[in-house]
Amino acid sequence: MINLNKNNFNRRWEDYRKFTVIIIMIIIGELINSTRDVIKEKIEEKDAEYIKKIAREQVECGANYVDVNSGAFVWDEVDYLIWLVETVQEVVDVPLTLDSPNPEALKKAAEIHKGIPMINSITAEKERYDEIMPILKEYKSDVIALCISDDGMPDSVDDRLKIAEKLIDSFEKEDIDLDRVYLDPLVKPISVNGEFGYQVLDTIQKISEWNTGIHMTCGLSNISYGLPKRSLLNQAFLIMAMERGLDSAIIDPTDKDMIKLIKAAEVLLNKDPYGKNYLKAVRAGELD
Amino acid sequence: MINLNKNNFNRRWEDYRKFTVIIIMIIIGELINSTRDVIKEKIEEKDAEYIKKIAREQVECGANYVDVNSGAFVWDEVDYLIWLVETVQEVVDVPLTLDSPNPEALKKAAEIHKGIPMINSITAEKERYDEIMPILKEYKSDVIALCISDDGMPDSVDDRLKIAEKLIDSFEKEDIDLDRVYLDPLVKPISVNGEFGYQVLDTIQKISEWNTGIHMTCGLSNISYGLPKRSLLNQAFLIMAMERGLDSAIIDPTDKDMIKLIKAAEVLLNKDPYGKNYLKAVRAGELD
Repeated sequence: MINLNKNNFNRRWEDYRKFTVIIIMIIIGELINSTRDVIKEKIEEKDAEYIKKIAREQVECGANYVDVNSGAFVWDEVDYLIWLVETVQEVVDVPLTLDSPNPEALKKAAEIHKGIPMINSITAEKERYDEIMPILKEYKSDVIALCISDDGMPDSVDDRLKIAEKLIDSFEKEDIDLDRVYLDPLVKPISVNGEFGYQVLDTIQKISEWNTGIHMTCGLSNISYGLPKRSLLNQAFLIMAMERGLDSAIIDPTDKDMIKLIKAAEVLLNKDPYGKNYLKAVRAGELD
Repeated sequence: MINLNKNNFNRRWEDYRKFTVIIIMIIIGELINSTRDVIKEKIEEKDAEYIKKIAREQVECGANYVDVNSGAFVWDEVDYLIWLVETVQEVVDVPLTLDSPNPEALKKAAEIHKGIPMINSITAEKERYDEIMPILKEYKSDVIALCISDDGMPDSVDDRLKIAEKLIDSFEKEDIDLDRVYLDPLVKPISVNGEFGYQVLDTIQKISEWNTGIHMTCGLSNISYGLPKRSLLNQAFLIMAMERGLDSAIIDPTDKDMIKLIKAAEVLLNKDPYGKNYLKAVRAGELD
């Protein structure tokens, strides 16, 4: 178990290299999500050992943040989210990603979170933006910003770029350092429309070209919704998105094939010069 | 064994879907290459059964062309290449890729090749170009065109684009349909220079944007030369290159992880609308 000295909190991912898998992409572990049946059941049973095990496994596999979500519980979301934060922080010292559209849940969870949390998520919807912005300020938290506006879900690259521009402008006005912000272009299933992959890839590239310092992340697995062998599609899409400028992803870090490909991609994209980290991972047997 | 009726030759890759793995990328199987020790040994022993087995396996795994190379034999290259063509054509009816820088070897092998072969390769080096062009014309062959000129190996995207432009202009003047030409941007090892990946990716994108109808292929595995776990690097690089417009690759088609990722990438890039081929492969158990 990782030492939970208060000073250990909120170290940036570079520090975690010492005791976890070396990774350059910023990985947000998605597994503790109540929309997954097994997790919903374990939360309901308050099976702390199970939740702790999943949290630890994700960090050991390279997660820089651990997402916690209790949104499947309409009436008890807040209580369960607090329980998740307390439970998970007993065993890991990476920051947690507090995952809810509900400002009350986010605020209460941020309050008891030790160290600086990540908020998942703010959007460009006026009401949601206005309610969540004060939480970002109060807790100086990192934040995932989803490309959704009051006009609904984006339908094109242009829709996404307009929302992104609006969000970036607002963050700058509010004096939120863009290095704290992880923009999610909003991934929709390729099974619905064959252009949905390109929409996300082109958005990532354009926003990367703006060079604002904002991070690009995505809830990757939506791309494969409705198709079998989802992990394969997720893996290929992640490599493509990294190639366009994605520097973070919300994924299952225990998917070893995915992590192996990420490490290879980092060498190919010159984010891991001379494959130094790659070679270290090979020597440690992590790529076997 | 596949029926070797003369009429079976030179069907385009679409026809092979009936009896081989469904694949949209045009795959050139690279395994029968005398620079690989085991192949060199088997060629020297004239172990026809072994060579036939490797040829069949590649086609069964989805190869649209089977490369044959005997270049490791300085004095006997021509005889061995002829033997390889005869041996491999006894068991597969996809066209072969005759792989040699030696015009005499290419000409003699093309002469006995049943159906239309692919020539690997022509370059923009004046002497080589002048010697190989007549072979393309006489046998109406497909051809891999490598981005090398009399100035040597390209050092940048611009170098590659200049050579590509020169080659495309020459092919058009010679009335060679660009649909017969597979341009290889020349892949150099990422272990030597971290920018070598981007050089190839950016070249592929630019040439794709020209919309000339020329195919883009590459001798992919050079990228990972000098690093361990090469297959991982090759896989990630292929996905990136597909995303930029690569529509063919010279690979080991028996690398099942690679083929699985290619099929996933085809869905994501809308080359396999609604994942029709992907779903067929899933049902056939090919993605397990």
